[in-house]
Amino acid sequence: MIRTALAATALAPLFALAHPFVVATPLAAQVAEPQAAPSPNEIVAQADAGEWIAIAPEDLLVMTLAPDRDGQQRQVVIQLMPAPFSQGWVENIRTLARDQWYDGIAVVRVQDNYVVQWGDPDGEDDALAKPLPGGLRVMTQREYAADAPLRTLNDRFPGTGRDDYAENTAFIAGFPVGFTIYSPPPGTTPDRFLTSAWPIHCYGMVGVGRDYSPDTGTGAELYTVIGHAPRHLDRNIALVGRVVEGIEHLSSLPRGTGPLGFYEDEAQRVPILSLRVAADLPAAERPRFEYLSTEGATFARYAEARANRRDPFFIVPAGGADICNIPVPVRPVTP
Amino acid sequence: MIRTALAATALAPLFALAHPFVVATPLAAQVAEPQAAPSPNEIVAQADAGEWIAIAPEDLLVMTLAPDRDGQQRQVVIQLMPAPFSQGWVENIRTLARDQWYDGIAVVRVQDNYVVQWGDPDGEDDALAKPLPGGLRVMTQREYAADAPLRTLNDRFPGTGRDDYAENTAFIAGFPVGFTIYSPPPGTTPDRFLTSAWPIHCYGMVGVGRDYSPDTGTGAELYTVIGHAPRHLDRNIALVGRVVEGIEHLSSLPRGTGPLGFYEDEAQRVPILSLRVAADLPAAERPRFEYLSTEGATFARYAEARANRRDPFFIVPAGGADICNIPVPVRPVTP
Repeated sequence: MIRTALAATALAPLFALAHPFVVATPLAAQVAEPQAAPSPNEIVAQADAGEWIAIAPEDLLVMTLAPDRDGQQRQVVIQLMPAPFSQGWVENIRTLARDQWYDGIAVVRVQDNYVVQWGDPDGEDDALAKPLPGGLRVMTQREYAADAPLRTLNDRFPGTGRDDYAENTAFIAGFPVGFTIYSPPPGTTPDRFLTSAWPIHCYGMVGVGRDYSPDTGTGAELYTVIGHAPRHLDRNIALVGRVVEGIEHLSSLPRGTGPLGFYEDEAQRVPILSLRVAADLPAAERPRFEYLSTEGATFARYAEARANRRDPFFIVPAGGADICNIPVPVRPVTP
Repeated sequence: MIRTALAATALAPLFALAHPFVVATPLAAQVAEPQAAPSPNEIVAQADAGEWIAIAPEDLLVMTLAPDRDGQQRQVVIQLMPAPFSQGWVENIRTLARDQWYDGIAVVRVQDNYVVQWGDPDGEDDALAKPLPGGLRVMTQREYAADAPLRTLNDRFPGTGRDDYAENTAFIAGFPVGFTIYSPPPGTTPDRFLTSAWPIHCYGMVGVGRDYSPDTGTGAELYTVIGHAPRHLDRNIALVGRVVEGIEHLSSLPRGTGPLGFYEDEAQRVPILSLRVAADLPAAERPRFEYLSTEGATFARYAEARANRRDPFFIVPAGGADICNIPVPVRPVTP
């Protein structure tokens, strides 16, 4: 019931961000109808250079798979989750990468409309498992989230924020998050606090495989989402980043035929040749990426257009969008 | 605003169906916590035989792709959309299949996190396009939907129905649909009418490719969803069914590198050897499938469990689910 009540009271964006759902209706009414409305991608293409934020080399992982059967290279680039989320696991992943621990492990599971997972194929066998480096942190389940109050909310965009899995959603530092709200007694200033926020399982997000709770995983076993957002995993598994390039090398792999999509035949596994922090590569070999600020005017226009398609193909604008249908634009930086 | 108000007034299920969102909270409070809560799939496995509904052979399509490079067979089975939705296109598709028109066309487009599309590779070239059979119907955009009042609503399940793309959602005849509501003046009986309902673009749904409106497509060009539900396509393109077996033969195809994921190299296209209505196959060759009634007690339990995972892996039940995260169970019938 509290969630229904909150949905109706028009929660405002977090960090004064443009919330995609709440801006949709007001902007649609204000914008004069152009001759041919731009598509969301056309809006992004018009962004000022200053609205793009460079991703630090320390926050990019370069994962190189064995070439495919035609000898084609397969490289996947992952952006690590920014603070304040999941930072213990993110540190562990840098430690594992710098130990070159991931080199020689493999993609072991491909479950249709769900996840691709990679790890030590012998990880379940104590006698055969690849030893982990020292210095890994042991995390608790709650440490994926930012507990609060992070910052107060305001009511800049009265509107229609709705979500089936969280009281509301927004973007923080370029990532989709869900959050809960605490409303203190009337008359208190400020009148609402963000009490907890956590990352959301959209397509391409990367998370930490684990066994049954209280195990939370070290970060040695990772997965990425290749289907409809499995939001029931939110707050149950730590998310540590997202694929920003090369997801097709994972999403188009043959599906495993064992339980949960594990490969039954070892020959189907896809070896991981190396996984490196971009900062550790020679400068000339570092991939460079930037994302569109989720706090800027262009992102607000883009999100509104994702929720209300007016480009020529469309007849009935939806009037809304779930947060996973508003992927944050990320692009390579060409030298 | 009307959508927010409706979300807060706990709209009831359509056709007295168990609406997944609205049953979630009440049931969660009523059910005693078992020692080990069953997973959604375990709940489905316990369904009575009478809750499974056979899919008519007239409503199943068998699409055979060319074998893969290892010589493995690739068969995809599609269930056509039941009445009252999109029936003009469904009739066209049967006409095209019975003309064997689809035989020899190809998968021409694979766009990551979006769609796989098949059709006549020369369809855009009037001189080369494969002639269509006579008797195809020309449809208008609105004919995907069932306009109303189909049936009145009741308030059997007060709850939390929410959706970003429709006033509410439900299942009709085993398919996910969105719908709008008309509320007549106070004192009128019944006090609410369903005014329009339309199928929803979940993973695996099959739709009709088209050019710019008012063209609606004939059904000769089809696509299926292989990513996060592209709900902005709802009410913009006719949905005509869903893949019930073999989607992995489409979702794991290499992504196209041309605009919109079209294959740039003709050699990448995947030939369709044949596409048949199951009813036209010899009885022994007909695939048989059945789906779990979306009106039964088991589906209600299943949907509730999808929204509130309590099986051992989970720590925080979501408390809700979007309709595309409640896939309707479909299974082959073994002789």
